[in-house]
Formats: sequence, C-alpha cells, structure tokens
Amino acid sequence: MSEMIWLNGEVLSLAEARIGVEDRGFQFADGVYEVVRIYNGKLFTLSEHLDRLARSCEGIRLSAPLSKVDLTREIGRFVEKSPVREGMIYLQITRGAAPRNHIFADSKPTVLFYARPLPAVAPAGTGEGLKLISQNDERWQRCWIKSIALLPNVLAKNAAVAAGCDEAVFVEKGIVTECSASNFFAVAGGKVLTHPVGPKVLPGITRLVLMDLCKQLDIPFVERAISEAECLAADEVFITSTTREIAWVMKWNDRVIGGGACGPITKKIHGVYQKFVAERTRF
Amino acid sequence: MSEMIWLNGEVLSLAEARIGVEDRGFQFADGVYEVVRIYNGKLFTLSEHLDRLARSCEGIRLSAPLSKVDLTREIGRFVEKSPVREGMIYLQITRGAAPRNHIFADSKPTVLFYARPLPAVAPAGTGEGLKLISQNDERWQRCWIKSIALLPNVLAKNAAVAAGCDEAVFVEKGIVTECSASNFFAVAGGKVLTHPVGPKVLPGITRLVLMDLCKQLDIPFVERAISEAECLAADEVFITSTTREIAWVMKWNDRVIGGGACGPITKKIHGVYQKFVAERTRF
Repeated sequence: MSEMIWLNGEVLSLAEARIGVEDRGFQFADGVYEVVRIYNGKLFTLSEHLDRLARSCEGIRLSAPLSKVDLTREIGRFVEKSPVREGMIYLQITRGAAPRNHIFADSKPTVLFYARPLPAVAPAGTGEGLKLISQNDERWQRCWIKSIALLPNVLAKNAAVAAGCDEAVFVEKGIVTECSASNFFAVAGGKVLTHPVGPKVLPGITRLVLMDLCKQLDIPFVERAISEAECLAADEVFITSTTREIAWVMKWNDRVIGGGACGPITKKIHGVYQKFVAERTRF
Repeated sequence: MSEMIWLNGEVLSLAEARIGVEDRGFQFADGVYEVVRIYNGKLFTLSEHLDRLARSCEGIRLSAPLSKVDLTREIGRFVEKSPVREGMIYLQITRGAAPRNHIFADSKPTVLFYARPLPAVAPAGTGEGLKLISQNDERWQRCWIKSIALLPNVLAKNAAVAAGCDEAVFVEKGIVTECSASNFFAVAGGKVLTHPVGPKVLPGITRLVLMDLCKQLDIPFVERAISEAECLAADEVFITSTTREIAWVMKWNDRVIGGGACGPITKKIHGVYQKFVAERTRF
C-alpha cells in the first residue's frame, strides 16, 4: 500500500501529491507545522500539539482554516485507516498560493498531513547515548513559533552530523538555549535544569509532559538561563523531542558526560515517560 | 498566452507547475532565490545576481546543479521567448525532495524561474515618496544569504502595511540594518550612509550599482553602523531594491523626511541609475 496524504480535504498518494510553485510555504517559509507521535496506532498528546499549532498560527497571523475539533476528527480518521502503528503524523499549514509578494493576499491556506513509521525508542537507560556539538545560535527571535523557516536548524543539524555528532546544541552568548530539533536539559544536584520557553526556545510537548512527570516524581524542575560551562559540568544531560522522547547524552563537544552512561535521573524520568505513553495509548 | 515557467529543464505553464510536498524548500525553507530585473526585454545585472546566487548556495552548502554559464543561457532563452518586456525573473533553487529529515539526503535540487511583468518605476524624483516604519530586527544572523526563509521579512512587511506604510526598517539595538525587502540609505552632509553587508544586511545588487555610481559622481559612500536617531535626522532617506530601483522616503514613523520631497542627492543618483539602466538595456 502506498503512503497516503491528507491534502486540503482530499486523501491521495503522497508520492503524487503536489503543491503549486507559488505556495507561500515554498517561496516565503510562510507556514507552521507539528509532528505528533503515533504509538500503538494511537495519537499521543494530539490535543497539546494542536493547541501549540493554534499559537503558532496566531504568531504568524494565519487564520487556520480548520478548527481544532475538525483537525482532531480528520487526523483521527486518517490514522485509523493508516497502516502506520508506530510512527508519527507530520502536519503542515501554509498561507497558500498567491502571486509572489511579501504582502499577504487573500490566499486559501494549504493544509496537509501524512503518517510515517518510526522505529521504537529503546527502553529507558538503554541504547546508545547521543553525541552533541555546540553551535552558535544564529536563529531568529521567535523560535517559540514552530515555523517551517527551518534553514538555520537544518544548517546546524548538518554541521553536527558532519562533525560525527547526532545533534547541535545552540549557544547564545554563552547560554544554552535548545537543540536544532529538540529541547535541552541538564541534571545537576538532583534538579532538572532547562532554559525557559521564549524567543529562543520552543514550548516542546515532550518538555511539557516531562515537567508534569518531574512534579509527580518530586524532582525539582528549574527554568532559567544556564551557561554552557555549567551544563558541560552537569551530572547528566538529555534532550527531548516527539520522535526521540527523552534521550540521554553521552558526549558533548570533547567531553564525556556522566561517565558515558545514562544517568539515574534521566533513566528514571524516561522510564516513567514510557510508562505514561503506554498507559495513554494502550486502548 | 499563459504564464510559463522553467522547472528543472522543462518549460510549462506556471499555473500547472507543481512541486512535491516533500521538497525541502516547502518543508525546511532549504533554498535560495534571486529576482532579476527585465528592462526592454533585457536582463539587467544578471551576472551579478548569479554570482550572489552562487554565494547563497555556498552559504547553505547546496551544490547548484547548473553552472553560471548554463543558467545564463537558459534564462536568456526563456526571456527571449517571454512576452514580458518590463518585469522580472524570479529564480529559486531548493535542495529538492527527500523523505522529511533535517539531515541532508542525496536529493536532486529543484531549479525554477519564471517572468512577471512590473510597472515602470517613476522617473527620478517624481512619484510618491515611501512611508517607512521601524521594526525590531529579529531575523537570523546570516541575512547575507538570500534564502527563502523569509517569514521574518514577511511578518515585518505586513506589520508595516497594517500600519499604513510601505516598508519596514529593521532596527537592531538602535542600529538601522536594512528593510524587509530592500537596502536602507541615509544622506547626511552630502554623504550616502548605509550599514555594511554582513549578518544583517544582504549584498543588494542595486546597492552594488549605486556604490559604483556614487564613486563616479564623487559622492562619498560610507559603510558603517548608523543609529536610528541619526538616520531619522538625515537630510534624505532612500531604499534600494531590484524592483523599486532607488526609492525616496517621505515619511518614517511619525517623522516627515527632508520636508516631504525627494532630496537632491537621491534624485541625482536615481537619475544616473535610470540612465545607466537605459544604456545597458537599450539593445
């Protein structure tokens, strides 16, 4: 069965799906997106993703053509029919096609989503740790908007890969903000530390769930600007994203983190996260 | 005759031209572009635009699939057959389609260009002056790359339009950098002042020609960081772009510039610019 896509209300083959050359998503990066995890054929935290999508739309002054209720129903139906049981939904909304001009036209937004399989994340504390490399944070000041203007993230990620690493850590004037496609966390003195959401940090949904789990586990969750030096000296470092869940870091620049093994707090939190996911997506 | 487009070597109807949903230009803003002016059916400063395109490609680590010679020939042939005598060529290159992943795949770049008519710019010193409004410069640090990650520019331009203005002037920590789709210039004490090219300023081609014309006219051309306050007190203010040429500014925020008329130096430079264009595109 070929991969399918929901495109402006129609379901068709992804390979054959096309958009116009003058779609503003293609010429101006004038759009936003979400990635929602599918576990056991169920959508995880879809509601939270759609709430963030609405905030992203507002951030770029785009009136979403479908309500949260409509999107929830359409995505739900799509996933029910999809062969993807373990994977993700990629969802994108752009301002649609109009003769090229920076100025907004009365264009009809383009809405699309499709499913992709993903390998299961290794059980908490197992698998290989990630290798990170620092990159100067040269991105714009509205990273809280999950926009498709991802070129700076793409360049940082590929610089990391070229250096034999898995992910790039953005550092702005000595302060760690987030990674190219994930949020960043350090564990020190039994506390989980991360930069507050804002101009340089996306309000990650995994980050949101993590915050809640830390509260339940009585692990202090501290949001503040943390220097790269402080992070490099941390007991544990991990990153979070929808596709990676909570991923432990083994190496960062030339430094081995936490003796090169997954730290106890990272392992504990990830274990609870995976349990939470399993409970939520069992039926 | 319907509008045509050159897309990956084929010439087809622009209205029917489509790109894949997973083109990296559509999902990651992973691409660059140029706008080249057509006067009297002739391409103006095409060579300079293609040189900048090559630098932009290098800036995003994209190997352009066509050489400058090939692009020059293909664009030249296209313009010869095009009904557009006064207008522009819009040219875009993206990294092409691949299953969505920040990491570069071995994708085949997408190359396209098409022509659009443009109204003639009013003779130097005539026409209406522009209204500008300042906007905080929240863009990334590699604005010298002419990338399609234009969302910040789009938001600034539309904020300007919403305020009844024509263009947004980016100001970073009190320093004027450039505008949302043009370079910025102030004239004070008989000198033309502008911010140097770099992280926040695109090497504009009209800016380049202007620099040369100033030299010929013995008008000092000074590249340095200029404060917004200094610019607001300038004798004249103008902006440059491929489509607007050299456009005088009448109002900026709440201030009328130069008594609300086109200043003598702006008028002189624009007159010489238009003469230069006419000479270069006569035959």
